Amino acid sequence: MQAARFMEVGRIEVGDIPDPDPVHGEVVVRVSHAGVCGTDRHILKGEFPSRPPVVLGHEFSGTVVAVGAGVTTHSVGDLVACDPNIACGACPSCLLGRINLCENLIAIGVQRNGGFAEFSSVPAHRALSLPAGLDLRSAAFSEPLACCVHALDVAAIRPGERAIVIGGGVIGLLCVQLARLAGAEVMLITRSPARQVIGGSVGAHTVAATPEEAREQWPRGADIVLECAGTGETMAQAPRLAERGGRVVIVGVLAKGEGVLIEPFDLLLREVDLRMAFVNPFTQSRALQLLASGAISTAPLVTREVGREDLPGILASQPGPSEVKVLVTG
Amino acid sequence: MQAARFMEVGRIEVGDIPDPDPVHGEVVVRVSHAGVCGTDRHILKGEFPSRPPVVLGHEFSGTVVAVGAGVTTHSVGDLVACDPNIACGACPSCLLGRINLCENLIAIGVQRNGGFAEFSSVPAHRALSLPAGLDLRSAAFSEPLACCVHALDVAAIRPGERAIVIGGGVIGLLCVQLARLAGAEVMLITRSPARQVIGGSVGAHTVAATPEEAREQWPRGADIVLECAGTGETMAQAPRLAERGGRVVIVGVLAKGEGVLIEPFDLLLREVDLRMAFVNPFTQSRALQLLASGAISTAPLVTREVGREDLPGILASQPGPSEVKVLVTG
Amino acid sequence: MQAARFMEVGRIEVGDIPDPDPVHGEVVVRVSHAGVCGTDRHILKGEFPSRPPVVLGHEFSGTVVAVGAGVTTHSVGDLVACDPNIACGACPSCLLGRINLCENLIAIGVQRNGGFAEFSSVPAHRALSLPAGLDLRSAAFSEPLACCVHALDVAAIRPGERAIVIGGGVIGLLCVQLARLAGAEVMLITRSPARQVIGGSVGAHTVAATPEEAREQWPRGADIVLECAGTGETMAQAPRLAERGGRVVIVGVLAKGEGVLIEPFDLLLREVDLRMAFVNPFTQSRALQLLASGAISTAPLVTREVGREDLPGILASQPGPSEVKVLVTG
Amino acid sequence: MQAARFMEVGRIEVGDIPDPDPVHGEVVVRVSHAGVCGTDRHILKGEFPSRPPVVLGHEFSGTVVAVGAGVTTHSVGDLVACDPNIACGACPSCLLGRINLCENLIAIGVQRNGGFAEFSSVPAHRALSLPAGLDLRSAAFSEPLACCVHALDVAAIRPGERAIVIGGGVIGLLCVQLARLAGAEVMLITRSPARQVIGGSVGAHTVAATPEEAREQWPRGADIVLECAGTGETMAQAPRLAERGGRVVIVGVLAKGEGVLIEPFDLLLREVDLRMAFVNPFTQSRALQLLASGAISTAPLVTREVGREDLPGILASQPGPSEVKVLVTG
Ligand SMILES: NC(=O)c1ccc[n+]([C@@H]2O[C@H](COP(=O)([O-])OP(=O)(O)OC[C@H]3O[C@@H](n4cnc5c(N)ncnc54)[C@H](OP(=O)(O)O)[C@@H]3O)[C@@H](O)[C@H]2O)c1
Ligand SMILES: NC(=O)c1ccc[n+]([C@@H]2O[C@H](COP(=O)([O-])OP(=O)(O)OC[C@H]3O[C@@H](n4cnc5c(N)ncnc54)[C@H](OP(=O)(O)O)[C@@H]3O)[C@@H](O)[C@H]2O)c1
Ligand SMILES: NC(=O)c1ccc[n+]([C@@H]2O[C@H](COP(=O)([O-])OP(=O)(O)OC[C@H]3O[C@@H](n4cnc5c(N)ncnc54)[C@H](OP(=O)(O)O)[C@@H]3O)[C@@H](O)[C@H]2O)c1
Ligand SMILES: NC(=O)c1ccc[n+]([C@@H]2O[C@H](COP(=O)([O-])OP(=O)(O)OC[C@H]3O[C@@H](n4cnc5c(N)ncnc54)[C@H](OP(=O)(O)O)[C@@H]3O)[C@@H](O)[C@H]2O)c1
Ligand SMILES: [Zn+2]
Ligand SMILES: [Zn+2]
Ligand SMILES: [Zn+2]
Ligand SMILES: [Zn+2]
Repeated sequence: MQAARFMEVGRIEVGDIPDPDPVHGEVVVRVSHAGVCGTDRHILKGEFPSRPPVVLGHEFSGTVVAVGAGVTTHSVGDLVACDPNIACGACPSCLLGRINLCENLIAIGVQRNGGFAEFSSVPAHRALSLPAGLDLRSAAFSEPLACCVHALDVAAIRPGERAIVIGGGVIGLLCVQLARLAGAEVMLITRSPARQVIGGSVGAHTVAATPEEAREQWPRGADIVLECAGTGETMAQAPRLAERGGRVVIVGVLAKGEGVLIEPFDLLLREVDLRMAFVNPFTQSRALQLLASGAISTAPLVTREVGREDLPGILASQPGPSEVKVLVTG
Repeated sequence: MQAARFMEVGRIEVGDIPDPDPVHGEVVVRVSHAGVCGTDRHILKGEFPSRPPVVLGHEFSGTVVAVGAGVTTHSVGDLVACDPNIACGACPSCLLGRINLCENLIAIGVQRNGGFAEFSSVPAHRALSLPAGLDLRSAAFSEPLACCVHALDVAAIRPGERAIVIGGGVIGLLCVQLARLAGAEVMLITRSPARQVIGGSVGAHTVAATPEEAREQWPRGADIVLECAGTGETMAQAPRLAERGGRVVIVGVLAKGEGVLIEPFDLLLREVDLRMAFVNPFTQSRALQLLASGAISTAPLVTREVGREDLPGILASQPGPSEVKVLVTG
Repeated sequence: MQAARFMEVGRIEVGDIPDPDPVHGEVVVRVSHAGVCGTDRHILKGEFPSRPPVVLGHEFSGTVVAVGAGVTTHSVGDLVACDPNIACGACPSCLLGRINLCENLIAIGVQRNGGFAEFSSVPAHRALSLPAGLDLRSAAFSEPLACCVHALDVAAIRPGERAIVIGGGVIGLLCVQLARLAGAEVMLITRSPARQVIGGSVGAHTVAATPEEAREQWPRGADIVLECAGTGETMAQAPRLAERGGRVVIVGVLAKGEGVLIEPFDLLLREVDLRMAFVNPFTQSRALQLLASGAISTAPLVTREVGREDLPGILASQPGPSEVKVLVTG
Repeated sequence: MQAARFMEVGRIEVGDIPDPDPVHGEVVVRVSHAGVCGTDRHILKGEFPSRPPVVLGHEFSGTVVAVGAGVTTHSVGDLVACDPNIACGACPSCLLGRINLCENLIAIGVQRNGGFAEFSSVPAHRALSLPAGLDLRSAAFSEPLACCVHALDVAAIRPGERAIVIGGGVIGLLCVQLARLAGAEVMLITRSPARQVIGGSVGAHTVAATPEEAREQWPRGADIVLECAGTGETMAQAPRLAERGGRVVIVGVLAKGEGVLIEPFDLLLREVDLRMAFVNPFTQSRALQLLASGAISTAPLVTREVGREDLPGILASQPGPSEVKVLVTG
């Protein structure tokens, strides 16, 4: 089959590799749609740990074409979306139910072969069945959406609160929708006018380009600030945009070792908490449900569809100024 | 001033009483809109404790016309909505912040003069300022809405869950809106076709007349069931309409002493919790915010506007088949 | 090896069966201590679903003697305690992290061979390693303790609250200790004077034989009521023993189909919630930690130690008046 | 009466001022015990906002000697402890129940006359009645203890977790006790050997002088880290001492404007949250309950008892190396 593999830092190779066989407890999926994620670019640059040679692609959907021994939950023909994170079940974090913090976490498309290929073999319980009526294209968004659902769980928005989302990438634009869905009045802060327009179209009540503009519109700040940009600058801004009693949820990933200055006196007297939301613990089936009911729209987020052969070029260059999500198909 | 007073069981008297003077810590409000509530009818029948003679009306909005000594937070001309529940601040419940469970709770319009009058004097901190742009008519809904906001806090809906609301009165129709706003797919169960139509128009994704019809549409039931009908029959149905891991929130009031049968084995193995939501603790400012932002619509819920002189007739008879909320104006 | 198997309703057979072989992903444990539980008696009477012929015993500890293919987390010689509940990982409940509500739950010692035998094969991730210093005898309590830890999580006791535990069996006596450990003042209600004495010795601040006696001592009731007796009578008492703003946690199992009458008016006005706690989701490693640190004592709960050959007699008869836990050894 | 008043930065004056008269809604308390707090020293240095001339002392207990008009909850002779924080009830924070974040907060003993005097007049609802059996000396600890109870609520410790408390002052030593009471295994980090000994005597399972020593004993760190030292150094250490999935609670007060560096990448991948706990919202009645039941011991924390005339010297100098709490009596 055709597959795009990460071979070493700086090198993606698109070529033929053997089809995966169905092993015990796994199902083989014919990949339909696979999303390109910033993490793929980080892997290529050697900024994120991986295990080359490996087929990248951790956001994908498809059809089950073969079922391994011992699998009772799936049949050939099932439409599924992949949850790439395989927790060990036995480490201290897993035994406490914090599976996203598993000490032995293996991610499909990062440490083992993923979805930038014709077929991918995944543990049956990581191949989530699509709710009735959901198409495979939208389902490819279920993994990033599941990360955002987790972020919203951590935020614990209550109807009538205000939320600021910083960052107009796919994570920010999904968080905008979820925050609105959670009953908040939502502001999106993103610099690019194109992203601001998309933000408005998917439900932001208002937009701003800078924290100063945000503050002008909402002088008291917001009950919840979701940091989805992943820069040192925006991390430092986030607590200052929070209201008394507010909470900041960090979703964006800053480089390892990079520091950010906080002011404990200010945080304490206003009881502004900093909470972390990492990947998708027990949230992807809810993400699928949200996509199936139409509560979350993904069409405005798809910038273009490409083939696997386009991946080396795409992953080697930076996303365009209005690019949100690139989907690999066929 | 003109006022409608509850004099004794079965008797409401509309007539002239002295205008209230502004006392220490209170403000006098010229009443603009006051909602009629089922509780008013219960008081008239002697089914709910009151202290006659007393001006009824606990859901109202208006304009501050006088300010008592020691009040620094309000000025003449302020638009306000009344939170009728005055907690003592000193009982065990109050000291734990459970102010809705105050052992010395005094409700404006129930145990002291309320809003079915030209003017009403209320403690300054129970006269909540209207957010910019909110009209007095909508603000009259802030008290029942605040009860529903509390119910939704207790329900703790997460985006992507399903909610069933039982009961198509004002409480049910506000809960439908709030559950949708909290990210749920919502079903309203109410028998009257007219109420079903209103339910759909304010946001229910689907409606049903009976639990059997509900079950047909959603065979697994719902993550959250909000009981807003207040009958023994619907209380017994509620847990059976909940999914595994679901929760039932009781909002409806059944008569004192009336029993309902539950099946603990079934509840335990499915971990279906029964949670209670009583009145409006710390939720009315959020209710006002929701009304101001337009997130909650009240226009479809106003059946008609009447004068104070109509109150004796209205309170003595049962609500009509499609009646939701009657507002007293002028 | 010698094993005590449930053959059909009313019949336990102690005899020789083949030793288990280590299969893929599993470890074989030489059983050291195995607790007898009320559920074993229910299975024997046909009151609880099982799959005969099957080796009973779902509360056990032991030493790993063989490791199947693919197991990287365990080695021969490891001391372990078994978590008997194997969730499927793929059903709606599992995907939401509610693994105790798994629709395909398989319990070791109930639906597949358990610990009333010399050896038992279990999935590696269900064989929890003992923390340093913990002995195998105490570790045999980790499963019932894990159920109680879950109950206490559900109860969410805050230091300075009061808790009433109803029922002086092993579940009640562990909950007494946990409630005290959670910072509560604790009362145990149990009828037998012998159990009351044990209750006091493991940390109950006070004891009572009846709800009336309880009420005399604590006229306001308790913030938390843990129902650990499993009778219709105590289920009905529980909400009445709760304070305003309190919560009742149902741990005891009533027969399927048996109803209990609640009074919604009373529960609502006092906001007394009914919460359910079923088995041990993600709590057994914490239970082991509590046993290892000595925070929970099990010695006073061991009534006697017996051999496997004694099981038919023990399971066929009712527990003695002061019996708490019978351990099968050797 | 004799009173110690803060007159201007650097000057405390002990002298005679008129006795307070009982005003509407207030009670006059004959002060029995009043604790000296670090905040008093900060006020004297001008580092904390106050309103001189004002009688300091915000941690005190005493006997009601006069009752103002409109007070129905108290009688002459009642033993009470003062909750110094008077929230306005009307600001956005108050309306949301976050009374500790009140925008108009007035603290007794800081912005209005407090307890370093023979008598003090306080609003009736801020004079909490002592539970039966509690002595006035212990009750003087109820305010700092209430702050710690809030910190522990924020920490949300579950039995079987590990907690590290940084700082061996009165706040740290109360948090040690509460963390233990919440079911945690507790380590105290404090540099002074004398404080380490007191820590062990009030319930710390282990002690350390430095984070390195702590790490040697608990290589994985702790589920909860309570920062109670209030230095930039310890604030920076706190997140590094937290386990995966852990949470840091900031209780210590750093100077306004002082920054602390965090590493978001590390916090995010381990989901270590930073939570804030400011003063005593709705927790002081629980603190009194804990003192009354003997769950918290204060005797080891009282370094010495002094007279009001000693206050100028005490407040002008730094606390001694083993000083924990100084009580003003008589
Ligand atoms: N926690 C998790 O589980 C998780 C999961 C997935 C992704 N992530 C992380 O989440 C972050 C967002 O992911 P993504 O895929 O949406 O990335 P992305 O496409 O790179 O989006 C980031 C956006 O941030 C905006 N931004 C950059 N600097 C800004 C500033 N100073 N002010 C305001 N906006 C600014 C940029 O838009 P403008 O140019 O318009 O400002 C950009 O579009 C990344 O750090 C990613 O690694 C985390
Ligand atoms: N907890 C609180 O704080 C709080 C606050 C306010 C009100 N309440 C209570 O909440 C309840 C609702 O208040 P409301 O003002 O909305 O009352 P309402 O106008 O009387 O509405 C109740 C609705 O329940 C429906 N109903 C009755 N029997 C039903 C059944 N068997 N199945 C389905 N629906 C049924 C009725 O509609 P159909 O005829 O169309 O079925 C009716 O419209 C009342 O019990 C009230 O006392 C509680
Ligand atoms: N939810 C779960 O996950 C879970 C897990 C394990 C067990 N359970 C259930 O928890 C319950 C307790 O288990 P167990 O092993 O401790 O059972 P047990 O040994 O039978 O203990 C029950 C105790 O309840 C007491 N009791 C009975 N009637 C009472 C009454 N009217 N008032 C006060 N106390 C009364 C009895 O003591 P006296 O004779 O002294 O009154 C008896 O010792 C059972 O129903 C069991 O099935 C649930
Ligand atoms: N959030 C709130 O509501 C609230 C309420 C009251 C007080 N506070 C704050 O809580 C903090 C503690 O109050 P307190 O009255 O207990 O103060 P304190 O008596 O000054 O105690 C602070 C302790 O921290 C220890 N410490 C200092 N540097 C340390 C280091 N590098 N490593 C370890 N320990 C160190 C010191 O003990 P060693 O010399 O032995 O190390 C000292 O005893 C203060 O900042 C206070 O302002 C906050
Ligand atoms: Zn793991
Ligand atoms: Zn009260
Ligand atoms: Zn399952
Ligand atoms: Zn305030």
